[in-house]
This record gives sequence, structure tokens and C-alpha cells, in this order.
Amino acid sequence: MSLLVVGSIALDSVATPFGETADAPGGSAVFFAAAGAILHPVQVVGVVGSDYPLAALKSLEARGVDLSGVEQAAGESFRWKAKYSYDLSSRETLDTRLGVFAQFRPKLPPTFRQARYVFLGNIDPELQLGVLDQIPHPALVACDTMNYWIHSKRDLLLELLRHIDILMVNDAEARELSGDWNIYRAARWVLERGPKMAVIKQGEHGALLVDRDTTFKVPAYPLQDVFDPTGAGDAFAGGFMAHLAATDDLTPPNLRRAMVYGAAMGSFAVEAFGVQRFERVTLADVRARVRGFKDLIHFELDEGRAP
Amino acid sequence: MSLLVVGSIALDSVATPFGETADAPGGSAVFFAAAGAILHPVQVVGVVGSDYPLAALKSLEARGVDLSGVEQAAGESFRWKAKYSYDLSSRETLDTRLGVFAQFRPKLPPTFRQARYVFLGNIDPELQLGVLDQIPHPALVACDTMNYWIHSKRDLLLELLRHIDILMVNDAEARELSGDWNIYRAARWVLERGPKMAVIKQGEHGALLVDRDTTFKVPAYPLQDVFDPTGAGDAFAGGFMAHLAATDDLTPPNLRRAMVYGAAMGSFAVEAFGVQRFERVTLADVRARVRGFKDLIHFELDEGRAP
Repeated sequence: MSLLVVGSIALDSVATPFGETADAPGGSAVFFAAAGAILHPVQVVGVVGSDYPLAALKSLEARGVDLSGVEQAAGESFRWKAKYSYDLSSRETLDTRLGVFAQFRPKLPPTFRQARYVFLGNIDPELQLGVLDQIPHPALVACDTMNYWIHSKRDLLLELLRHIDILMVNDAEARELSGDWNIYRAARWVLERGPKMAVIKQGEHGALLVDRDTTFKVPAYPLQDVFDPTGAGDAFAGGFMAHLAATDDLTPPNLRRAMVYGAAMGSFAVEAFGVQRFERVTLADVRARVRGFKDLIHFELDEGRAP
Repeated sequence: MSLLVVGSIALDSVATPFGETADAPGGSAVFFAAAGAILHPVQVVGVVGSDYPLAALKSLEARGVDLSGVEQAAGESFRWKAKYSYDLSSRETLDTRLGVFAQFRPKLPPTFRQARYVFLGNIDPELQLGVLDQIPHPALVACDTMNYWIHSKRDLLLELLRHIDILMVNDAEARELSGDWNIYRAARWVLERGPKMAVIKQGEHGALLVDRDTTFKVPAYPLQDVFDPTGAGDAFAGGFMAHLAATDDLTPPNLRRAMVYGAAMGSFAVEAFGVQRFERVTLADVRARVRGFKDLIHFELDEGRAP
């Protein structure tokens, strides 16, 4: 089933204790597509400036990413510069230049309007609503947001919640949105406002899937070396949505599997700078890592005996 | 199989956003025993002052805790006073008065020296070594410590590591001990210094069991209301060790189950102030919660189909 992502296409300059990049391809749509395309073709809607090194995106195209929804506009590309703390647990944004992204008004090519699985990356909720207006029959819509929109466009964000199936945010965003520091109560708050499910990303602590009846927890994959946390959340979203689109199965067991595929993609994302790692990840690698998650968390009940 | 704990027996005065206690029974040995005794009898070694409300411990005795190793000494009992942050994620110790605990030299009653499962709660590593000298044939020794000993008695602590099977510490302690912020590398560091296993407690994010071959992760139980995190780590240890003592089974699958029993006890601990919650927890409650963990983390691989 067709899978579409709308989000940022950026040039990232990131410094971690282990190295740095300058103007490397990044942004939510790029991380989503790089991860998701390993499982299923991805249609990308976004904008780049006239200075964007389009060759950097061509490798995505070779891997099943449809870039016909990427508009090239006159002006500078979106640039983001950040520096991580020594333990990668926090980061400081040093510079954000929106460039052509500031005037971005997503317009879907006609073929994209039949999209069944839709991920609305972190952009203005007004634009997210505008994208949904162009897609008449989605099977599943998931949506990210960030603190900036939670504060500056809260009403539109609440309107958006009434039209999506899954809100997928990190724990800090869930807390800010709901005003509740307890993450499980924050998830309930979200479910009362429209979405059938909340996916809460917890960085090095994994992610939660909460619906009305159950909670599913997937931990983060144990990694002895983490190089760059940038984009892990979007890679998670790419793995999650691409697994669902590939299987076209929204039953609870498959949603749980999708969480594990998401966590696997998140773990690959942090093993190298930017989207580099995905150039080498195969479907077999993904499956091996999914089995690794099973090994990591599996235990057998043994109720027949003491105690 | 016999199960013994050595640790503090304190009077805790704790303030959280949800209330406060004054001089409530606490300390590592008390939390361990209150949780563990639900699964298996526990022998306690510790010291209290002449002012200790022994009646408060009698309820433990009724639940299978052997207090014959608890010495009552002239002087004041160990008192600890702390205040938690609004989100319970951090706490400030307002006062620590060691009292008779400062002169504590654990001396095991003869019957306790046959202990097979031994938990050395967080006390001076010199005393922990002294306890081990009195137990000739333990089947399994697990040990906790804290930053204070990591800094002030590092050599003795490293000596202790050569004599124990499991180091059970929280993530900050593992990082300080190893000098490595990556928790998986920190665990490897521990395994290279003697213990067969490292159990790393991560508070609201659960716990890890790391041995030479595998890593097992148990998340924390999803709770919409947490009242007092005090003692959760010791209750975890109590559940973990009591499950092992009750089953006398150190195979990998049973060690994983023990982690889940530990996590279940940790989740009960935080649902009320001090050890109060354990007065009402039944074996059936524990088993139900263990099944709850299974529901929380279970997913099925589905490798027969796409993607």
C-alpha cells in the first residue's frame, strides 16, 4: 500500500563527541524515507532550495523513494546546526535557517493523493491539515509535532488531532502537550482528543504504543557505540509506517511488530552520522535486529510451579 | 533455599508531591524483606537503635521474615530524610543520621551461616566482605553499593567484586564505578572484574540483566500514579532474589523471570509510601503483575511474510 511522508528536507551540521558533519542531508522526511524505503517504497513531499545537492537524494531514489513530490524553490535550503552533550543525552541548537522551508505549502502530485499510509512529519499543523485535505482516503495517518507548535499553534494542533489516527511524539512533547508529567496519563490525554493511538518515543529508553486497551513497550536496542542521535525518531517513524504499509495489516499484533521495526530503524540511525548508516542496511539486517529485540525482552511465564 | 539479606534498617522521613512520612520503617533490608517475603522466607541481618518501634517490624515477621539477625543496640536508629522533585525524577537528601548504624558489624546467627542466596545491601564494602566470610557455601551472592563507597572505598569494592556473582546497582552507580557513560560498556566493565552478571536498575525505565552472552531488558510497569520511589530498587532486589531462592534455579530463563518478579516488586513499592503497599500485596497480585509485564512487552515475530 502506498506510503507518503511530508516533512523537512534539510542540510544538517551536527557535532557530537565522536565527530561532526557539515551540510549533510537530513530533515524528518529524509530520515523517514531512508529508513522506511528498506521495507517499502516511500513517496516524499517536501521542498529544497536552489542550493540543495540533489545528488545526495538520488541514492534514496535508487532505493525506492519517489521524490516527485519534492519541489525545488529559489532560495536557500533549510539548514540546522546543533551540538550534542558529551553523553548525547542533550543537544543545543546553534542555528536554524528555514530558508525556502518558511514558505513551504505542500502540494501533492495527483498520484500521491491516493496515499493510504501517511506520515505528517513535524511541520506547522496548518500545513499538516492542508496535506490531509489533499488525501481523500487514507487508511492510517500518523503525525509528529514539536514544542514550538504546541505553544504557538495549539488550537490548530488540537484540530489536527481530531483527524489523525496516531500521534507520534517524544516524551517531552507528550508532557508539554498534555500538561501531565506522567507519560501514561499524557497518552490517555491524547487518546481523549481524537487519535486511536499514541506512540511516545523515549530516546535511549525505547518507545511506547498506547491505545484504549493496552500499552506496548519496546526498549531501545542495546548499543555500545552511539555516534549521532539525530533523526532517530524519524527513522523510527519510517520503520513503523513502512512495516504497516508493506503488510497493510492494522491488527494489534502487527502494530506491535511495527513498533519493533521502528525501534530497529532508530537503532541503525544512531550508529552513524546522518542517514549514512541506511546506505548499508539490508532487509536481512533489519530482520536480524528485530530478532535481537525478541532475544532482548523475551521471557517465559512459568506458572506451573513455585512460587 | 535459604535467603539472607544484610542491609540498613532505617526510619525514613520522605516528602513527595503527594504527601509525606515521618520516621516510617525503611532501609534496604526492610524493603528487600517486605517484597521478598511474598515469594519466599527472608532472613534479615541488621541493627536498630533502642528507639526503634519494633512493632513496626513485627508485621514482617508474621509474613515470613526471620528477624533473629536484627541486633538492637543502645543509641539512635538510622534516620534518613529526603524530599523528591515535583516529577519524582530526583530527590534531595535533607538529613542522614547514621546512629547505631555507624558501628554496625554484622554478625550472623549460626543458623543464618548456611544461607544459600545472599543479598548484600548497600553498606560499607568492608562489612559486605565480612558477611561473606561468615557464609561458607552460598549458591548466589548479589550485591548493591552506592556512589559514596565507589569513591571512598574503591579498592575494597573491587576486591568484593571478585567474590560476588551479581552486582546490582543503578545506572548512575554503574557509570561512576566504570567511568563509562554507556551503560552496556559499563556492564561489560563490571563483568571483567569478577561478577558473572550485572543487574542495572534504571528507575522508571526498568532494569537490565547483562551476562557474558546476553542482555535482558525488563521495562518498568506502566503506572499512572506513583507516590514514593523510595526503596523501589531494594524491593526489586527482594523480588529478584526471592524468586531465585524459591525456585533454586539459576538457568538463564529463570534469571529472566527473576528480573520480572523484581520489576513487579519495584512497581508495587512506588504505589504507596514506604513499605505500606506490601502489606496488601498477595502472591496472586504478583503473578497478575508478572503477566501484565508479558502483555506489555510481548510481540510475535512474523518472518513468513513480507516485508
